[in-house]
Amino acid sequence: MRTLSLLTAGLCLGLNAWAAAPDANEPVQPIPPAEVADPAKVELGKQLFFDPRLSKSGFISCNSCHNLSMGGSDNLPTSIGHNWQKGPINAPTVLNSSMNLAQFWDGRAADLKEQAAGPIANQKEMASNHVLAIDVLRSIPQYRESFKQVYKIDQITLDAVTDAIAEFEKTLVTPNSRFDRWLKGDEKAITQAELEGYQLFKSIGCVACHNGAALGGNSFQKMGLVEPYKTDNPAEGVAGLTGKDVDRFMFKVPTLRNVELTYPYFHDGAYWDLDDAVDVMARLQLGRQLSKEDIGKVTAFLKTLTGDQPSFSVPILPPSTPQTPIPTPFN
Amino acid sequence: MRTLSLLTAGLCLGLNAWAAAPDANEPVQPIPPAEVADPAKVELGKQLFFDPRLSKSGFISCNSCHNLSMGGSDNLPTSIGHNWQKGPINAPTVLNSSMNLAQFWDGRAADLKEQAAGPIANQKEMASNHVLAIDVLRSIPQYRESFKQVYKIDQITLDAVTDAIAEFEKTLVTPNSRFDRWLKGDEKAITQAELEGYQLFKSIGCVACHNGAALGGNSFQKMGLVEPYKTDNPAEGVAGLTGKDVDRFMFKVPTLRNVELTYPYFHDGAYWDLDDAVDVMARLQLGRQLSKEDIGKVTAFLKTLTGDQPSFSVPILPPSTPQTPIPTPFN
Repeated sequence: MRTLSLLTAGLCLGLNAWAAAPDANEPVQPIPPAEVADPAKVELGKQLFFDPRLSKSGFISCNSCHNLSMGGSDNLPTSIGHNWQKGPINAPTVLNSSMNLAQFWDGRAADLKEQAAGPIANQKEMASNHVLAIDVLRSIPQYRESFKQVYKIDQITLDAVTDAIAEFEKTLVTPNSRFDRWLKGDEKAITQAELEGYQLFKSIGCVACHNGAALGGNSFQKMGLVEPYKTDNPAEGVAGLTGKDVDRFMFKVPTLRNVELTYPYFHDGAYWDLDDAVDVMARLQLGRQLSKEDIGKVTAFLKTLTGDQPSFSVPILPPSTPQTPIPTPFN
Repeated sequence: MRTLSLLTAGLCLGLNAWAAAPDANEPVQPIPPAEVADPAKVELGKQLFFDPRLSKSGFISCNSCHNLSMGGSDNLPTSIGHNWQKGPINAPTVLNSSMNLAQFWDGRAADLKEQAAGPIANQKEMASNHVLAIDVLRSIPQYRESFKQVYKIDQITLDAVTDAIAEFEKTLVTPNSRFDRWLKGDEKAITQAELEGYQLFKSIGCVACHNGAALGGNSFQKMGLVEPYKTDNPAEGVAGLTGKDVDRFMFKVPTLRNVELTYPYFHDGAYWDLDDAVDVMARLQLGRQLSKEDIGKVTAFLKTLTGDQPSFSVPILPPSTPQTPIPTPFN
């Protein structure tokens, strides 16, 4: 995990002069479209992302909780795992996740490749184990052939599996939002109210943490900086890894890209209404009580961050064989 | 439900003269490609098919158990439903299901539209109810607009919802299998062993029940005709509806299209290996003990029935709103 630094959230950025056109130094940048160096690798990763045979039950795939029909999330407070177990924390969107400085809310995986191995063997999620999951894939001739082609290996490895999933996930970026079109000079891409929302977003300090191309994902911050966040969720953020008191409630700042699609909000998924989430953030992180009108403007701006969703054919998975270990959902 | 007639399974068909080319009167016909009269209706139905908000949990969609990445099935003996409940019977493939004379193993739904309403409100499956499911859709402006455009209605109704799902499902046909290419005159589309398998399939009597374009789906037959089928599964087939002893273990004959992808087999999903399924069917339905070599030939033929799988973009679902009833997976 990276070194964490607690930026004083707030007021160091923002307060640009009012303008219809973007400044040359906007703290938010457009998302570039995905560059696919190796389409066969991405296609293989896509199959794996959608393959529930990586789970013990044969029922849960990566896409179950990072559903690409629903903003790369499951739109649930916390996920449903093997045997209908309730997950401990809200599933972050996979969209634009390659831009995160680390993966998971507490940053315990350095990158997407490391992340991908986690849920497969997590007994509360897919509940398989790495040996079994690899055995399943090795029993399927079409997977063997794909890995041979793409990775030049005779035996499928976890390293190659997680690499392929990560390479697919890197393509899951959402360029061309209305806000990005505005950033690129199309003044009519957003309305006056949305623009005012963006100006507020900068002037009151949201942008201190939610900046860069992903509007977040590039720092860890304390949830409940000015006022404590009240929740029944026991997650302690980075402190769960380091044991340090200074890291309590330090979570990775989530991206605001596609936030319209990734409800419910926060690490506990306690807020379903984007207006409420904006209100809570302004109070707890910035000590600001926003008016209903201002909340509406910020929310209107946030909805301009919905970009082109990944578009691709539903993958067709290669069939199991008599050698494939049988899924065991009920034992 | 339709009137059922118990054909005497067996030997009335088949025994064509040996030939490399198809006969003009083959008992199997090629699958025609889907004709889409109203693309907007099909697109709407596709969204609904993939939308887990039709379930109480917000986690289970039609595609969860009729997974279009996996032959339109879940590749499990019986499905996983709400709260990880174990389903009572194997989920039949949705592929080519429009060709069935009725839906469900016991034929209790007359058509796909009637079928689609079932799982939404089945407490062992999606565990919602029709009022709630419709309320969810009515709270989403993009769905309201789609139904207005497609069905010319101001209020979304269950009737329109199930109609749209059924119209999408009617497009899920799988033309252009190697066997269909052979039927259409391409003599090289199947191998000699596969052709011998087809000849066996006809001569020993499989084709008595598995005929027509779908190789099944067009009659109800008794499971365990010559010899009883041994299973722990309590399903009694059509008798569960009629209460008549003559209907005990009468099930709809499943299609053999894409059978390579739709394991495990039979209404209880007890057999994972297609060789074993062929062996059991020959013994129990036809009183034939096939040699290993003949089983291999029939299986080889059956694998030529895998057609073009439905190809379309992963649908992007319209987001919920603050008015949308919140999913309740855990209570």
